Amino acid sequence: MSVISLITDFGLSDNFAGVMKAVILQINPQVKIVDICHQVKPQDVRQAAFLLSSSFRFFPPKTVHLVVVDPGVGSRRRKIIVRTKDYYFVAPDNGVLAPVLRDEPLKEIIEITNERYFLKPVSCTFHGRDIFAPISAYLSKGESPVKFGRAVKSFRPLDLPAVKINRRELSGEIIHIDGFGNLISNIDKSTLESFIKNKRFSIRLKNNTLRRISRSYVEETAGKPLALIGSFGCLEIAVNAGSARDYLKASKGDKIRVIME
Amino acid sequence: MSVISLITDFGLSDNFAGVMKAVILQINPQVKIVDICHQVKPQDVRQAAFLLSSSFRFFPPKTVHLVVVDPGVGSRRRKIIVRTKDYYFVAPDNGVLAPVLRDEPLKEIIEITNERYFLKPVSCTFHGRDIFAPISAYLSKGESPVKFGRAVKSFRPLDLPAVKINRRELSGEIIHIDGFGNLISNIDKSTLESFIKNKRFSIRLKNNTLRRISRSYVEETAGKPLALIGSFGCLEIAVNAGSARDYLKASKGDKIRVIME
Amino acid sequence: MSVISLITDFGLSDNFAGVMKAVILQINPQVKIVDICHQVKPQDVRQAAFLLSSSFRFFPPKTVHLVVVDPGVGSRRRKIIVRTKDYYFVAPDNGVLAPVLRDEPLKEIIEITNERYFLKPVSCTFHGRDIFAPISAYLSKGESPVKFGRAVKSFRPLDLPAVKINRRELSGEIIHIDGFGNLISNIDKSTLESFIKNKRFSIRLKNNTLRRISRSYVEETAGKPLALIGSFGCLEIAVNAGSARDYLKASKGDKIRVIME
Repeated sequence: MSVISLITDFGLSDNFAGVMKAVILQINPQVKIVDICHQVKPQDVRQAAFLLSSSFRFFPPKTVHLVVVDPGVGSRRRKIIVRTKDYYFVAPDNGVLAPVLRDEPLKEIIEITNERYFLKPVSCTFHGRDIFAPISAYLSKGESPVKFGRAVKSFRPLDLPAVKINRRELSGEIIHIDGFGNLISNIDKSTLESFIKNKRFSIRLKNNTLRRISRSYVEETAGKPLALIGSFGCLEIAVNAGSARDYLKASKGDKIRVIME
Repeated sequence: MSVISLITDFGLSDNFAGVMKAVILQINPQVKIVDICHQVKPQDVRQAAFLLSSSFRFFPPKTVHLVVVDPGVGSRRRKIIVRTKDYYFVAPDNGVLAPVLRDEPLKEIIEITNERYFLKPVSCTFHGRDIFAPISAYLSKGESPVKFGRAVKSFRPLDLPAVKINRRELSGEIIHIDGFGNLISNIDKSTLESFIKNKRFSIRLKNNTLRRISRSYVEETAGKPLALIGSFGCLEIAVNAGSARDYLKASKGDKIRVIME
Repeated sequence: MSVISLITDFGLSDNFAGVMKAVILQINPQVKIVDICHQVKPQDVRQAAFLLSSSFRFFPPKTVHLVVVDPGVGSRRRKIIVRTKDYYFVAPDNGVLAPVLRDEPLKEIIEITNERYFLKPVSCTFHGRDIFAPISAYLSKGESPVKFGRAVKSFRPLDLPAVKINRRELSGEIIHIDGFGNLISNIDKSTLESFIKNKRFSIRLKNNTLRRISRSYVEETAGKPLALIGSFGCLEIAVNAGSARDYLKASKGDKIRVIME
C-alpha cells in the first residue's frame, strides 16, 4: 500500500485537485492519496515549502510527496523528482523542495523529460494534471525515477529569511500563522536553547515582551500571550484560548528577537 | 476494512489534519479515513459535539470516531476512549462525547495513559498527532481499548442548552446554522410531536411566526420561511431557495418557541 | 477497485459530505471516494454542471459520478442514473448532466424509484444521504442500473449561455472564474480556431483588447492580461502572476467577443 501526499495552491472551489486524483487513480488504483493542503496562497512557494518541510517526515517510507505550486507553469522551469533515503518528492524546480533537502539525505535528482508518461495532450497551464500527477502515480507503483528523465546535479535554492545571531541577540521572523492565530517563527528549538543556555532572556515581538518559554498553551491565563516550542519544533508565540495574530496585530514577516539580559 | 472518522478545529489551511492522517497510515495502511469536518470554530466543543452526534450513526460498525477539539491540550484533562455497542470514540475528555453517550449504550471508558503507543517525542500542543492519531489507528486495527490505559467510570458532561416545556409553551434555541443558512434547533421530532399533539400552534423565532410544519423546503414559495423536521431529526427553520439566517437575521443561541394557541 | 466522485453544494463546514461517505462505505467498503468539489454555490446547478463536464473524463472507466446540487429536494423532480459508454452519473434530474451528455454517448437513463435501496427513513431534505449515496454505492459494486428503477427516455436540459457567431464576430460569456482569478469562457478551442482561421482578430472583454492567443501564462509580463486556451479546452483570460478577475473587475456572465479585423 503506497501513499501520495498533495500540496497545491488549487483551493477547494475548483476541480483541479479532484482531477489530479482521478489521473492518479487511473494509473494506480490502490494508492492512498492524502491532502496536506490545497489552500496555499496562489503561487506562494515559501508557504508550500514550509508546509512540506513540517509534514513529510510523518508519512510512511516511500511516500511520494507531490507539490504543485507552480508560478512558472508553461515556462522552461524544470520539473524534478528527488529521491531521498525515505521519500520521493515531485515538484516544479522552483525552490519548494529546498528546506526539505537541507536535512534529508539526498539520493538522486531526476529532471522529468520522458513525455511517454505524460497525459496527452499536455496543456501549458496545468502540469499538475498532465505531468506531475501521472509521474507521481507511476512512482507510487514502484517505477524507478530514472525512467522519467535524466539525472541532474542540483535543484533551485529558496530565498528564506535567515536567523541572525550575535552575542546578545538572536533574531528571526514569523514565517507562518496557523488557523488558530499562533505565530510560528523560523527559530528552531536547538538554536534557541544553545543561545539562551538557561540564562535570563526576553523575547520581543511588536511591543510585547515575554520572559519565559512555556510548555503548553494552558500555562498562561486565557487571553494572555506566551512563547513556546510548537509542535513542529520552532519558537512560537500563542495566546491561550485566543489568537496571537489578533492580540498582537502580527503579520507574516514580523521580526522576533530573543535578547540576553 | 476499517474506518476512522475525523472532526477537528484544524481548518484546511494548515497541515494538521494531513499530518494526523500520515501518522494513522503508518500504523494502519489499510484504514479508510473519512473527514466529517475540520472547520469547527477553534475550541468550540459544543459545535464538535453537535457534528459528531448527528453523524456517527451513519458509519459502519466498529468505526473509530476521532474528535480533536481540545482547548485543554497540554493540561491535565484526560484523554479517553469510549467503546459503545457499535463504535469507538477517541477524544479529550472535555464533554465532546456527552451528547452521543446520552443515546448510545456505553460499554467501557478507558483513560489513555499507555505512552508506549504515543508518537515520540510527545508535544504539549498537538496531541492529535502524537496521541489521538496513533491510538485511533491501533484501535482500527482491532487492538483492545484496555491496552491503552485503565478503565474509568465517568466522562465529563457538556453544558448544553435545555429544552423547556410547560403546558402552553415549548422553548429551545438555535444550536447550529448550516452552510445553506438553515437554522437547526435543539427541539427534536418526538418532543415536538408529543407537545403539539395535532392541535393548533405557532412557532416564533425573532419576529416571525409560522403555523405549520412543512415536509420539505419546496412546500413554501421561494424566498419564504418555513418550519420542518430537518434531516437529523430536529425542528429547523429554513427559507426555500434562500437563507433563513439572512432572512431572519438569526444567530446561534436565538430562542425558538412553540406556543399552543 | 471502483471510484465514486462527488460534487455537492454542501460546503466543508457541515457534516453532510462526511455522512454521505459513511453511507457509501457501509455498502461498499472497498470503493475510493474522490471529492471533486463541495463548494458549489448553494443550488447553482450550472456551476455544478461546469465542474462535472470538465472533470468526468479524467476518471477511470466505470466511475460513478455523483452530483448533489438539488434545489428541488423533496419535490417531484426525478432522480436519475445515466449510463454512458464509460461512466455512471447519479443526480437529481435538474439539468446538471446536460453538458456531459451533449458529448458522451448515452446508453440508458433510469429513473430511481426502487425504495428498497434507500436509507430509511427517507428524509425530505437530504436525498444525498438517503437516496443518492446508497444508489451510487450499489452501482459502484457492479449492480445494474435497472435494479433501481425504470428506463426513461429523456433528461432535463440546462439553459446555458450560447455562443453566437456571425461573419465578423464570435461572442460568448465568462462561465467560470477559478480560484486564481482566471476567467473561463464558453468558447471552445475548435469553435475559436475555425472562426479566426489564422486571420487578424481582437478579443474584447470589459474595456480590454487582446490581439493574440498565448500558449501559457508566462508569455506575458507579470501583471498583464492575456488570452489562452485553458486546460479544459476553452478560451480563458488570465493575468500572469495575478488575478484577471481583479485586474479587469470581471464577473461571471460578462460578455467576451472575438472580432475579425
